[in-house]
Amino acid sequence: MSERLIYLPLGGAGEVGMNAYVYGYGPEGKERLIVVDLGVTFPDMDGSPGVDLIMADTAWLEANVNRIDAIFLTHGHEDHIGAMPHLWPKLRAPVFARRFTAALVAIKMEEAGLASDMIRVVEPRPKAIDVGPFRVQFVPVSHSIPESSALIIDTPAGRVVHTGDFKLDGNPVVGEPFDPLEWHEIANEGAGIKVLCCDSTNVFTHNPGRSESTLVAPLRDFIAAQKGMVVTTTFASNVARLKTLAEAGRAAGRSVCLLGRAMRKMVQVAEEANVLKGFPGTIQPEEAVDVPRQNLMLIVTGSQGERRAATAQLSRGKYLGLSMKEGDTFLFSSKVIPGNERGVIKIMNAFSEMGVDVVDDRGGLYHVSGHANRPDLDAVHDLLRPQILIPMHGEHRHLREHAKIAQSKGIATEIATNGTMLDLTGPAPKVVEYIETGRLYLDGTVLIGALDGVVRERIRMALNGHVLITVIIDEDDVPLGDAWVELMGLPERGKSGGDMMKIIEDELSAFLESAPEKIVRDDDKLDEALRRIARQVAMEEIGKKPEVTVVVSRLMAE
Amino acid sequence: MSERLIYLPLGGAGEVGMNAYVYGYGPEGKERLIVVDLGVTFPDMDGSPGVDLIMADTAWLEANVNRIDAIFLTHGHEDHIGAMPHLWPKLRAPVFARRFTAALVAIKMEEAGLASDMIRVVEPRPKAIDVGPFRVQFVPVSHSIPESSALIIDTPAGRVVHTGDFKLDGNPVVGEPFDPLEWHEIANEGAGIKVLCCDSTNVFTHNPGRSESTLVAPLRDFIAAQKGMVVTTTFASNVARLKTLAEAGRAAGRSVCLLGRAMRKMVQVAEEANVLKGFPGTIQPEEAVDVPRQNLMLIVTGSQGERRAATAQLSRGKYLGLSMKEGDTFLFSSKVIPGNERGVIKIMNAFSEMGVDVVDDRGGLYHVSGHANRPDLDAVHDLLRPQILIPMHGEHRHLREHAKIAQSKGIATEIATNGTMLDLTGPAPKVVEYIETGRLYLDGTVLIGALDGVVRERIRMALNGHVLITVIIDEDDVPLGDAWVELMGLPERGKSGGDMMKIIEDELSAFLESAPEKIVRDDDKLDEALRRIARQVAMEEIGKKPEVTVVVSRLMAE
Repeated sequence: MSERLIYLPLGGAGEVGMNAYVYGYGPEGKERLIVVDLGVTFPDMDGSPGVDLIMADTAWLEANVNRIDAIFLTHGHEDHIGAMPHLWPKLRAPVFARRFTAALVAIKMEEAGLASDMIRVVEPRPKAIDVGPFRVQFVPVSHSIPESSALIIDTPAGRVVHTGDFKLDGNPVVGEPFDPLEWHEIANEGAGIKVLCCDSTNVFTHNPGRSESTLVAPLRDFIAAQKGMVVTTTFASNVARLKTLAEAGRAAGRSVCLLGRAMRKMVQVAEEANVLKGFPGTIQPEEAVDVPRQNLMLIVTGSQGERRAATAQLSRGKYLGLSMKEGDTFLFSSKVIPGNERGVIKIMNAFSEMGVDVVDDRGGLYHVSGHANRPDLDAVHDLLRPQILIPMHGEHRHLREHAKIAQSKGIATEIATNGTMLDLTGPAPKVVEYIETGRLYLDGTVLIGALDGVVRERIRMALNGHVLITVIIDEDDVPLGDAWVELMGLPERGKSGGDMMKIIEDELSAFLESAPEKIVRDDDKLDEALRRIARQVAMEEIGKKPEVTVVVSRLMAE
Repeated sequence: MSERLIYLPLGGAGEVGMNAYVYGYGPEGKERLIVVDLGVTFPDMDGSPGVDLIMADTAWLEANVNRIDAIFLTHGHEDHIGAMPHLWPKLRAPVFARRFTAALVAIKMEEAGLASDMIRVVEPRPKAIDVGPFRVQFVPVSHSIPESSALIIDTPAGRVVHTGDFKLDGNPVVGEPFDPLEWHEIANEGAGIKVLCCDSTNVFTHNPGRSESTLVAPLRDFIAAQKGMVVTTTFASNVARLKTLAEAGRAAGRSVCLLGRAMRKMVQVAEEANVLKGFPGTIQPEEAVDVPRQNLMLIVTGSQGERRAATAQLSRGKYLGLSMKEGDTFLFSSKVIPGNERGVIKIMNAFSEMGVDVVDDRGGLYHVSGHANRPDLDAVHDLLRPQILIPMHGEHRHLREHAKIAQSKGIATEIATNGTMLDLTGPAPKVVEYIETGRLYLDGTVLIGALDGVVRERIRMALNGHVLITVIIDEDDVPLGDAWVELMGLPERGKSGGDMMKIIEDELSAFLESAPEKIVRDDDKLDEALRRIARQVAMEEIGKKPEVTVVVSRLMAE
């Protein structure tokens, strides 16, 4: 039986976030496997109310767990490592990551009460890791967190480059620059690059990406021009931006204070891992309260409007003794991720009510993206000259646009969304199988399937309200007393002006009084009949049909 | 007692949408009142799940209903007239509107089974309506719906200009242009303009607004360049855009078909009201199915991703026999209203999966706003030279920014959000009172207060799930049988791996077996004890505390 090289995205291909990719090599159905990244994405009220985190469903990997040789983590962002504490216990393969990423993952595992000794710290290329039929090298790329890496995955079928998240930045403030000379070398070793699996996040952004270092001067000038306290926010994991902001604040003559647990920890871990050097001295929140406002700058968590982060807390009042007031300035050194607009706008208006000037990134002066824009992608295709280009990390529209670019250059390509297994052995990718895939929700402390119906029930209660009906049936199959109704999330009064609970109870009781015995004796029929009456009354009274739960208690002859 | 001129926004000041403003003149507390606009805004899953429409709470107006002389409607958009069927029955004052607006309102009232004979059709200035101490004139302004008008409200305390929604468009395709000469005249009559209450929607947009007429050529060229079927969407009420799109489609040699009830009706009403002339001939959906794709253009509803509109339906499959496929093009000739991103992106990806090219307004070629941008606002301030400028229609940050502009020009101003009553009699506005105000939710067919707790219960069920507990207590205050538990929106199994319903039931039953009589006899204490146990078990099993409803049924001695 001939051997083949396969690619199977389980997350990140059809969405931005929740990255999880599988490569395999070997005889069909017996390929040895490696996993690249195990990330999360974040819930929203529309589709996943009450959920804490969302990650790829790894059922297929679990069914093939003995074939997994290793897990590789490209960098330390949540959408690449956040699922480790939840999914690693199901996969239990050795984990390879660079020092800083490894440190972040180890903290995560330990916080979840898990061991972290399966994490192996690796050095970048020319060091290589041999696992099964794969030889893997980490190649430094620039992104918004230090030690971000692309992976070179050499297989008997040829060389695969998995870019991870990257941008072209020759001067990235912290972390390593994108090095075209090294990539030229990589493209020219042996038979060159067979497959490029490439980040598609910014394929619709038509200007070339800008370097992190271009932000320092505008930020310094902006901060220096403000008269009151300046508060800035960005992603806690954007270590480069934290340094840029802190340096700009110090250059503007201000004391700098980091606010928010995630941010303080990120700086600490980065310093310990030796990837963040020369971070300006900062002061503690308890000291900050005594600094004159015009001499103070805070860097705070919560750029996406997260309810419990420092930004949202400051918008509601005091946080660790600090609060904003008239004449202060709040700067979003960040982009709003689509879907988070409402929360961010709410915060902007709360600040506005305090008399705080809010500045966002609309002018493009105070934020740059961590991903390669379209011209940058073009440059990378041309530099690497792959035989096959597989767009990854993006919504379907991003993948499709990226595939179109490949086609226009005569590079073989295929849009492979989560669950699509490609055979990459030949000169062009071939879809060989669709794997049953999906999403897992971390709900409290439990992992549930997105399609288990649990969250669907919650959404239905949120849209329609919930009616509870209790009836007691005695030993002789005769209703005992009246039906009892409780309403949750429903108006008390409707069209008739009467108490709706009472009206439903009356209708149910009237039904029970004359209900045929064959219905009263049958739990399902009784449930169905009571439910239908309650929904019908609600429809008449308030114009909507609520969810209904019926509890029939039957007294037993003793 | 001296007389005074008051202004009281009830909606639209502190948000975009839901416009409802009150002006009054007379002795304090006895001012005669007029209402300007009664609009709605739209619910979202985050804050108002299951709600159909949101509008201003008119409790204060209802308490002063005998003082209301009239309701004026500036134009026919939902956020200015949408609450009429729901709020007019509480206010019952005569309604003044221009012909097309009146026609749209009449349809709305009739669809709700209400009379429409309180609507008086008015002609624009120089015609004037005298009601109480007010003389009101409708002045045509350009916006994205025909017959949009500003109001001149002359009072014994001076002239107020209420702009309504407007833009500066000298060539608005349909509707009347903004006429600087007429406004110059208005500003120079008598003592000039005392108060300008001015639209703030686009105060953060720094380029001058563009005319609707600039879209025709780019749209025609775009449509002509497409090879498959072209489908475009915009707001159904944007009559000008409908005409622009239809003309561009015809110019590109395509048959044009309108899809979506709201859009077809809007064109029909506009033609009947004589505000839409020369709309190109269109074909019916049943004819469209037979037209070759490259000769067909659809104009469809649902630019904001509304689930039931034509755009969303096409993204899910067939709609009235028409469907999109590989090679077709979908154009959003519209802007995404913040908060609607998720729904729109979902649709874009669904089209992408079909192989449809999706084009949005990112390039600015295929959409212009209906509101005055910052330089346009500047021009209007300078043209009208008001003594006082009150920013209206905007979130707090918009109002604040607009007030800053006024201040920088030495114009007296005040940020008045919903419920803030201003005295405008003197040379500068004075806050005189804060009125208890809020929002009403249309929920099915019932109006409920936003703070009634109904929607809060729904949100809590969506976030936390819902546990129902039923226990029966016999005539001697002894629990009869075991507790009965049902779960809604909660996982079946938690940490222990057992059936959580069963585990809660067992804990409750164990408690009931040995519960002190004084708890079992007391409904509140029993409820509280059972609730606490259920929440504690859930916390241990699944790491979250659900909502709990306890139903205690007590058997009575007969």
